[in-house]
Amino acid sequence: MKTINQLSISISECESMFVRAIEEAEKQGIGISLCVVDSSGVLKYFGRMDNAPLISIDISRKKAVTAIGFGMSTGEAWHDFIKDDPILNDGVVNIKDFILLGGGSPIVHDGNVIGAIGVSGGHYKQDEECVKAALNEL
Amino acid sequence: MKTINQLSISISECESMFVRAIEEAEKQGIGISLCVVDSSGVLKYFGRMDNAPLISIDISRKKAVTAIGFGMSTGEAWHDFIKDDPILNDGVVNIKDFILLGGGSPIVHDGNVIGAIGVSGGHYKQDEECVKAALNEL
Amino acid sequence: MKTINQLSISISECESMFVRAIEEAEKQGIGISLCVVDSSGVLKYFGRMDNAPLISIDISRKKAVTAIGFGMSTGEAWHDFIKDDPILNDGVVNIKDFILLGGGSPIVHDGNVIGAIGVSGGHYKQDEECVKAALNEL
Amino acid sequence: MKTINQLSISISECESMFVRAIEEAEKQGIGISLCVVDSSGVLKYFGRMDNAPLISIDISRKKAVTAIGFGMSTGEAWHDFIKDDPILNDGVVNIKDFILLGGGSPIVHDGNVIGAIGVSGGHYKQDEECVKAALNEL
Repeated sequence: MKTINQLSISISECESMFVRAIEEAEKQGIGISLCVVDSSGVLKYFGRMDNAPLISIDISRKKAVTAIGFGMSTGEAWHDFIKDDPILNDGVVNIKDFILLGGGSPIVHDGNVIGAIGVSGGHYKQDEECVKAALNEL
Repeated sequence: MKTINQLSISISECESMFVRAIEEAEKQGIGISLCVVDSSGVLKYFGRMDNAPLISIDISRKKAVTAIGFGMSTGEAWHDFIKDDPILNDGVVNIKDFILLGGGSPIVHDGNVIGAIGVSGGHYKQDEECVKAALNEL
Repeated sequence: MKTINQLSISISECESMFVRAIEEAEKQGIGISLCVVDSSGVLKYFGRMDNAPLISIDISRKKAVTAIGFGMSTGEAWHDFIKDDPILNDGVVNIKDFILLGGGSPIVHDGNVIGAIGVSGGHYKQDEECVKAALNEL
Repeated sequence: MKTINQLSISISECESMFVRAIEEAEKQGIGISLCVVDSSGVLKYFGRMDNAPLISIDISRKKAVTAIGFGMSTGEAWHDFIKDDPILNDGVVNIKDFILLGGGSPIVHDGNVIGAIGVSGGHYKQDEECVKAALNEL
């Protein structure tokens, strides 16, 4: 019988990423929400800092879902992929839970996408810094 | 870095299960819908026979989702688990996509739950026969 | 009494289209999801290849729903229809389950729209090739 | 101008509660999801253990939402409140995100409800033990 073997991120790594992302957020003077989905796009972890804006709850989740959906980071990567094609550019807006804003990234381990992280709360460039910090923790 | 290893059903097995379930359904003189979700509860396969009642579309999906949710078959297994406890009995109705009707079953391979199947279209006892036939195909 | 006679695609044709679409997808080196709705827009068939990106699940369904909704292919046909009219262009985004991305097509038989197919997983031009291959199978 | 002063749980307490709840879950041999909402019912924290059943994701959230909704624990407290009144008993099922299952509790500090916690994964009596352990941590 043929089966598929899928790797996913563990909860302990999620907790560590959140601790590290908070440090980076505090350095930048912002409050963030952080969301992690597993390699199937299923919710694994969510945390909202005490000073995070309410808008960050939904956005952080959508960034993680978008990043796992095609294994590609939100922000520049997705933007470059769609910007010169009107059908792609106008079409992605209706993908379920899609968000173009930077701050979502696949989590890669040994060449496997094992989940995705989404951070929201500051300017998306600040969110991206928090993602970078969190991923460096792994 | 700690990761989780998850086994899931492959698409070719889903196609075979559908072919086998249709045979059983025709033997029983019913039309069915069949739904398969992977080990993360994500939609993998769906087919609706030409004579399946419309109600079977949603029910087959819910049976698969319920079966993967706790790794337990719908119908007797879930019913026996809740029937003597009023809080359980009255509480399960609000679980997302939960359905008590028989015809949903985890798909088990070497002791691992690798997905779940849901069949709907006839009496739930007939649906269960179709599930059994499909699982025997694996 | 006046009634309506509606032709719809049968399940066996859906299974064949999926087999053929998979062949084309493998030729192109992509993994796809394929969704078929009947002439009433009701879900008839869905299959997800083992290497299809998660994003393809929702998009394939929306492409089929969009194609049956107005009897017109997604992608170029819809884009040409709306691009020079700002109200159309900005308005379609809120149609339920609408998606502009190519890879959705009505299934036509003897001049009747008998259903619609949606494929997602690669670039939309690749998805369109899989749709073409599937339709040639009929 | 009259304003309202609202106390809410902080994110650091959520992280501690999760650590403590995991310990209790491991002692009981189960895997859990834990969800915390603030005093406004807004998502504050979520974590899913690696061995938690999928069904626990939605249920843990609903338990927290139900507990904050009326400031009353799910399970026995809610059940005793409704059981002798048919209109209450049959009526609560349609409250948005309501769930009767035990394992949801308000988080009380100095007589103020500052949030709510929901745990799901085992039998609801086991979930309640994890809630108790988490609340003792505060």
